[in-house]
Amino acid sequence: MKALVYLGPAKKALEDRPKPEITAPSDAIVKITRTTICGTDLHILKGDVPSCQPGRILGHEGVGIVDTAGPAVTAFKPGDRVLISCISSCGKCVYCRKLMYSHCTTGGWILGNSIDGTQAEFVRIPHADTSLYRIPEGADEEALVMLSDILPTGLECGVLNGKVEPGSTVAIVGAGPIGLAALLTAQFYAPAEIIMVDLDANRLEVAKRFGATGVVNSADGKAAGTIMKMTGDRGVDTAIEAVGIPATFKLCEDIVAPGGTIANVGVHGTKVDLHLERLWSHNVTITTRLVDTVSIPMLLKTVGSRRIDAKQLITHRFKLGQILEAYDTFGRAADTKALKVIIEA
Amino acid sequence: MKALVYLGPAKKALEDRPKPEITAPSDAIVKITRTTICGTDLHILKGDVPSCQPGRILGHEGVGIVDTAGPAVTAFKPGDRVLISCISSCGKCVYCRKLMYSHCTTGGWILGNSIDGTQAEFVRIPHADTSLYRIPEGADEEALVMLSDILPTGLECGVLNGKVEPGSTVAIVGAGPIGLAALLTAQFYAPAEIIMVDLDANRLEVAKRFGATGVVNSADGKAAGTIMKMTGDRGVDTAIEAVGIPATFKLCEDIVAPGGTIANVGVHGTKVDLHLERLWSHNVTITTRLVDTVSIPMLLKTVGSRRIDAKQLITHRFKLGQILEAYDTFGRAADTKALKVIIEA
Amino acid sequence: MKALVYLGPAKKALEDRPKPEITAPSDAIVKITRTTICGTDLHILKGDVPSCQPGRILGHEGVGIVDTAGPAVTAFKPGDRVLISCISSCGKCVYCRKLMYSHCTTGGWILGNSIDGTQAEFVRIPHADTSLYRIPEGADEEALVMLSDILPTGLECGVLNGKVEPGSTVAIVGAGPIGLAALLTAQFYAPAEIIMVDLDANRLEVAKRFGATGVVNSADGKAAGTIMKMTGDRGVDTAIEAVGIPATFKLCEDIVAPGGTIANVGVHGTKVDLHLERLWSHNVTITTRLVDTVSIPMLLKTVGSRRIDAKQLITHRFKLGQILEAYDTFGRAADTKALKVIIEA
Amino acid sequence: MKALVYLGPAKKALEDRPKPEITAPSDAIVKITRTTICGTDLHILKGDVPSCQPGRILGHEGVGIVDTAGPAVTAFKPGDRVLISCISSCGKCVYCRKLMYSHCTTGGWILGNSIDGTQAEFVRIPHADTSLYRIPEGADEEALVMLSDILPTGLECGVLNGKVEPGSTVAIVGAGPIGLAALLTAQFYAPAEIIMVDLDANRLEVAKRFGATGVVNSADGKAAGTIMKMTGDRGVDTAIEAVGIPATFKLCEDIVAPGGTIANVGVHGTKVDLHLERLWSHNVTITTRLVDTVSIPMLLKTVGSRRIDAKQLITHRFKLGQILEAYDTFGRAADTKALKVIIEA
Repeated sequence: MKALVYLGPAKKALEDRPKPEITAPSDAIVKITRTTICGTDLHILKGDVPSCQPGRILGHEGVGIVDTAGPAVTAFKPGDRVLISCISSCGKCVYCRKLMYSHCTTGGWILGNSIDGTQAEFVRIPHADTSLYRIPEGADEEALVMLSDILPTGLECGVLNGKVEPGSTVAIVGAGPIGLAALLTAQFYAPAEIIMVDLDANRLEVAKRFGATGVVNSADGKAAGTIMKMTGDRGVDTAIEAVGIPATFKLCEDIVAPGGTIANVGVHGTKVDLHLERLWSHNVTITTRLVDTVSIPMLLKTVGSRRIDAKQLITHRFKLGQILEAYDTFGRAADTKALKVIIEA
Repeated sequence: MKALVYLGPAKKALEDRPKPEITAPSDAIVKITRTTICGTDLHILKGDVPSCQPGRILGHEGVGIVDTAGPAVTAFKPGDRVLISCISSCGKCVYCRKLMYSHCTTGGWILGNSIDGTQAEFVRIPHADTSLYRIPEGADEEALVMLSDILPTGLECGVLNGKVEPGSTVAIVGAGPIGLAALLTAQFYAPAEIIMVDLDANRLEVAKRFGATGVVNSADGKAAGTIMKMTGDRGVDTAIEAVGIPATFKLCEDIVAPGGTIANVGVHGTKVDLHLERLWSHNVTITTRLVDTVSIPMLLKTVGSRRIDAKQLITHRFKLGQILEAYDTFGRAADTKALKVIIEA
Repeated sequence: MKALVYLGPAKKALEDRPKPEITAPSDAIVKITRTTICGTDLHILKGDVPSCQPGRILGHEGVGIVDTAGPAVTAFKPGDRVLISCISSCGKCVYCRKLMYSHCTTGGWILGNSIDGTQAEFVRIPHADTSLYRIPEGADEEALVMLSDILPTGLECGVLNGKVEPGSTVAIVGAGPIGLAALLTAQFYAPAEIIMVDLDANRLEVAKRFGATGVVNSADGKAAGTIMKMTGDRGVDTAIEAVGIPATFKLCEDIVAPGGTIANVGVHGTKVDLHLERLWSHNVTITTRLVDTVSIPMLLKTVGSRRIDAKQLITHRFKLGQILEAYDTFGRAADTKALKVIIEA
Repeated sequence: MKALVYLGPAKKALEDRPKPEITAPSDAIVKITRTTICGTDLHILKGDVPSCQPGRILGHEGVGIVDTAGPAVTAFKPGDRVLISCISSCGKCVYCRKLMYSHCTTGGWILGNSIDGTQAEFVRIPHADTSLYRIPEGADEEALVMLSDILPTGLECGVLNGKVEPGSTVAIVGAGPIGLAALLTAQFYAPAEIIMVDLDANRLEVAKRFGATGVVNSADGKAAGTIMKMTGDRGVDTAIEAVGIPATFKLCEDIVAPGGTIANVGVHGTKVDLHLERLWSHNVTITTRLVDTVSIPMLLKTVGSRRIDAKQLITHRFKLGQILEAYDTFGRAADTKALKVIIEA
């Protein structure tokens, strides 16, 4: 089968690989119909993710059709249309029993990382019963690709951890796909203000279209002051960090109101400064989270009932044979205005 | 001053009464600019509320302008435009310190009940600092009359107690003004389905316009079966009782899913049957609540940011001199299609 | 093997039955070392539980040793010492994914009910990975029998649903084994007062020894008045109903304070009156729950760290060959002062 | 009257000062019967608290008797015995209405800071109705001095923010008075393990006596490794930082388990490193808080019901005339083994 293979820093190829096989009774093989590329895949290609070794098929998002199911799989059978969670969960370990699937002792984020992933014609899904979700009748499968990772990440790590609530004031720092996913899902909770911060004017335009009530271009280095002014010097109830560098975390510290929350979503490569000399008495909460994808069932219902239009995030479409071109488009997002690219397998 | 006075069961009159005066240092006198009539006022007129004695000026909702403020009032001064909470709260007692203002030991629902109310040119507001809310610059004051009682009641007693959440399934039994207030505020939380139940076809039409995803006319006595069918025999996550009779509470018991909640909003005159022989093992929660109006600050923000259009609830407008006509219109809602009537003082 | 078999209303016998076998890949066969008898077993013997048919081996509590494990079982192997949950859970269905194991679509309370149970030398446990718990090194296995059902029930249905918290006032109506389990686990949360209500003076003595701060013998029909006096006419924050009849539920309604919770634990055979004509404005919460046993991991830790002495509940010990005598002793608790009886297999 | 006055860095004196007078209608004058010294007073004397200017009477803890009450005070009258909160709250502002009294716009921590405090014969308490608490009949007033600041701080900033729960594993870094207050109040929630960390062997001995299940002397620089070993390499569910320097915050980062919480209590003078390059995916929560003292009513009940022995924290007693000696004893705690010192006025 065709598969996009990581070959070491800055190297990747579309290769021919053997179709995966069931290796544990709870595995399923899924024939991929649609997958996508994640910012994390670009991180891997930079060599930033040591757990992902050369030879690995990339990808941890997608929808497809069950091809084969191991003997212990009871919830799915061949032919079932399924959504793949980016997080594999056994449903049995101490973390899974607390709904913290991200830390499953035999799962977590392994797809396209420590085991082969979804940017291929077929993928092996461990713990299939608790890592796949049935696609409802009549659903738009393309939209559901957004539920593998990006929407649960924006929602769980940003919106839920950030305790967004009706009437509250939210700032989202970073208007990339993840920040926009937070923007879309924040609207489940009717905040009064959602201020979007980025350096890219195009993405801020998209943010306005997606429901931001205010946008701040941080290119002038004055974003903190601008936001304090926008909030009557009170700051924001929720600051969602969706970039992953010290400067954006610092901005969140500068704008969070007393009693507020900084919900970190960004993947950080270095430590940041935490200004406890000021914040120790500010009654703030800071959270971190690798997505658990526990919100997939809820997201399936909100997509089904049109409370959210997941498809807005999709800007480009490719065939699996064109996946190198898809990577190029996604990798040059500032030029191509790409948000999420769909790859049909 | 002109005032609508309760004169005993079925009797009321627009009378001339002396302007109220400050009696405690924390009182304020508010000049009413707009008030409204509540279903509870009709209950009083039926003689159902013994705490309300003949001679009482009715009304517990409204907006106005501070006329005089007692020496202990620090948050307001004459000329301030204010929203009046239907619940007076001292901010000091054991209940107020738990944000359960409804049970304030020297407040609670007293306006237009045990003390004179808002259907008059002026009203005395006890505990003014904690019972009035400043009206934001540029707000539509007419819309804010809906924040004195009806929207906080739908939200707190129905939506918040009912734990409405994104993707959930909600049924609201009763599409009167309170049920519709629950319908509007439920949408703060992006439920997948909101099924509205009533006997009145007009009100069900209004409900559809206000965002109901399904409506059930219970006139055929088969509402429970219909709703079970609509929910794939699973029942609803939240059943909001907004009528106040045994039959509608029974309907909520019949349709609540395992793990779900019945949030009672209705004012009941008799006991109801609780079918614990069936429900003991269903992991359900039943809540009751007299509104605390703790949500008024949040509602002010959601109205200000247009997350909710409170004004939709207003169907008729009168002058204070026409208040008897307003009562007639509101009392014959089935004919007049009245929801909330505004009375300008 | 020897097994206690239900033979229809009022009939049971110790019979010789074939050893159970694995029927699904996720099954395990457990050799029972200790089991016990539950009040529910007595209900079955009265013919009150239609799902339990004659021929059924009773019992849903116990500890033992894994004898055989099906091919899909990954968490346990033969020889592992295990605690059996009274609730079987698949870990995969919509209810299990919400930690509401009691309503597992292929599990729930089935042991000793719709499938053969634990009052035998061996038992087949479906969904073994998610229905068994490893016994920690050095644990007192006898004490752990209390974790199969009675302590999780008191804790989850009574204490957690009842929101017991430091400084709060709790009444527990019914000082049988379940009420006493609620009493023991309520102390995890340091309430200021725990008032125990029963008709049996001996059980009230036990309650005092187990930590009740006050006891009320309800034989005089004046329990409500007595409790109101004990609480300065304020009532209790949490009323735990651990009997299951209309009179005891009524008592809970009479004594719950505004803002308080009635947590129903009792198994009810008939409907009860819910006095909404009084309670609609009291801001109360009423909960029902079939135990989910989600608290077993937490209970294992609190038993291990001696925060709770589970063994206090055990009053009598028998061999499996004497189980009819054990039933007799447990069934005549008023005379024998039995709480929980241990049966060694 | 006699009063302990701050005279600039490292300078203080017992001076004669005029008795304070009512300046606002909601003030009360309280005759102090007992007060104490806080670590924060030592910070002020180091010149670390710019808001506290020379000439200020220090002290923010104590119990006493109402001497005079302003005309707007309704909850207290002269002769009432009262507990003074270290936090003054108006009960009216946006923060007070959210129970975040620490940030009251006209209160917060002002006593012995921006207005004169309690280390004197009399003190003026602003917002008396919502900043004083009635002392129950028969209470041990000396023990209640611990409820002004230290116990609410340990409980709110450490235990409640840290989400301590039955069966959980807790580490408290710093066994000074505040860390010990966290230790005492953590036991309200029956954690399985409470590991206390300090450099002072005497304080670790005290911690054992107060209920620590394990102690770690961090003098060898290996505390993190030791705690990881003690927890089976899993780390702790709750790490309470009760020192306020980068090294102790770092220790908390090193030992917090995935899904766990770092509750900061310490007052920090410099920024700390937050290792997001590791923690971004660990699903941790970090909280900061200036005590709100919202837990005083609950603490009054737990002290009254002997769920906690607050008096254990008191090691020395002085008269107001000896307060300089009291400061000396408290300031040389390593030598004197002082925890809290009581000063009788």
